[in-house]
Amino acid sequence: MNIKSLICFITDGSDEESVLKALRSGILWIQYREKGLTRGEMFYKASRLREITRKFNACFIVNDHVDIAFIVDADGVHLGQKDLPLKEARKIMANSNKIIGISTHNLTEAIEAEKGGADYIGFGSIFPTTTKNDAVVYGLDTLKKVKSFVNIPVIAIGGINTDNVKSVLDAGCDGVAVSSGLLRGDVVENARRFLSIIEEVRQ
Amino acid sequence: MNIKSLICFITDGSDEESVLKALRSGILWIQYREKGLTRGEMFYKASRLREITRKFNACFIVNDHVDIAFIVDADGVHLGQKDLPLKEARKIMANSNKIIGISTHNLTEAIEAEKGGADYIGFGSIFPTTTKNDAVVYGLDTLKKVKSFVNIPVIAIGGINTDNVKSVLDAGCDGVAVSSGLLRGDVVENARRFLSIIEEVRQ
Ligand code: NI
Repeated sequence: MNIKSLICFITDGSDEESVLKALRSGILWIQYREKGLTRGEMFYKASRLREITRKFNACFIVNDHVDIAFIVDADGVHLGQKDLPLKEARKIMANSNKIIGISTHNLTEAIEAEKGGADYIGFGSIFPTTTKNDAVVYGLDTLKKVKSFVNIPVIAIGGINTDNVKSVLDAGCDGVAVSSGLLRGDVVENARRFLSIIEEVRQ
Repeated sequence: MNIKSLICFITDGSDEESVLKALRSGILWIQYREKGLTRGEMFYKASRLREITRKFNACFIVNDHVDIAFIVDADGVHLGQKDLPLKEARKIMANSNKIIGISTHNLTEAIEAEKGGADYIGFGSIFPTTTKNDAVVYGLDTLKKVKSFVNIPVIAIGGINTDNVKSVLDAGCDGVAVSSGLLRGDVVENARRFLSIIEEVRQ
């Protein structure tokens, strides 16, 4: 997998400037997640982010929309359990270097995603999160369990911030995905902290 | 263009049974338009409708979602002004037999769509419609004007029913798209009426 970073920034409607700050700070994995824009607007925004991420040689993933991921030549697509089936998405993202990630919320989904050929799974929510109000919280024990059953990279997601990221990494995940944990407060400062904690744990 | 019918049934959340009734009655052009379902659910429904329409050798178009249109091997995709740009959609629907239709609401959009390589345009609303509350009504004079400037097929849409369809066809459109005009009341009876009026006008 072409992932350049142990931390993925999920954009969640944030502006280009925040993405640029994250990239400049060394977060080289961006997932463009957007709700509420038209497909036309999303295409435009995704094209811009593809351009920008390319300049940083960063990994660029589009959430949900396989058509947009394909068209802007993203590095891959991230699918939820209610999105197009992995196998079908692969028909469009036929280039074998393309990444398909799957959101999972329990062991069954995680094993299923691996069997289906996912390149990585997102697993969560690990902690309560403001981004998705309806998210069920699983915690670090379930994360450890998933890690012991699944061989593809497991990316922890949900309520991860600079205060708790160490505990998540210590639980054995292969990376973390953050959104408000990066955006709340100073993006550059948060990014710096995330990366230095990751660096520490890795050693 | 592979369109098998001068009348297109836009499904708008109706069930398979209504689509089957339309097909059995001889309406051989189905546009799957759906709001409010997940992409996973839409994929499943579109797959079913693709199977069914194939049995009737009918034309099957998917509204908005280029990824789903591609994956289920629809005959084409219909795009609104706020959807993916035509040129980009064509990259996915690369098979040259695939149809791309564009919704237009004025002469500029209609000419633009033709220039951009659309296979047909939808033009409307011709009459007030219950399906789209915010639709602006243009009427038959504008339809005539569009027809005089555009060479690709112009499909009239918006509030068309068995009472007014003759006036729309007389205005010179190449076909009509209907939704509630077919669904309200008895689908089979409505279909029979639509088709007999079309047959009459054609002669
Ligand atoms: Ni889509």
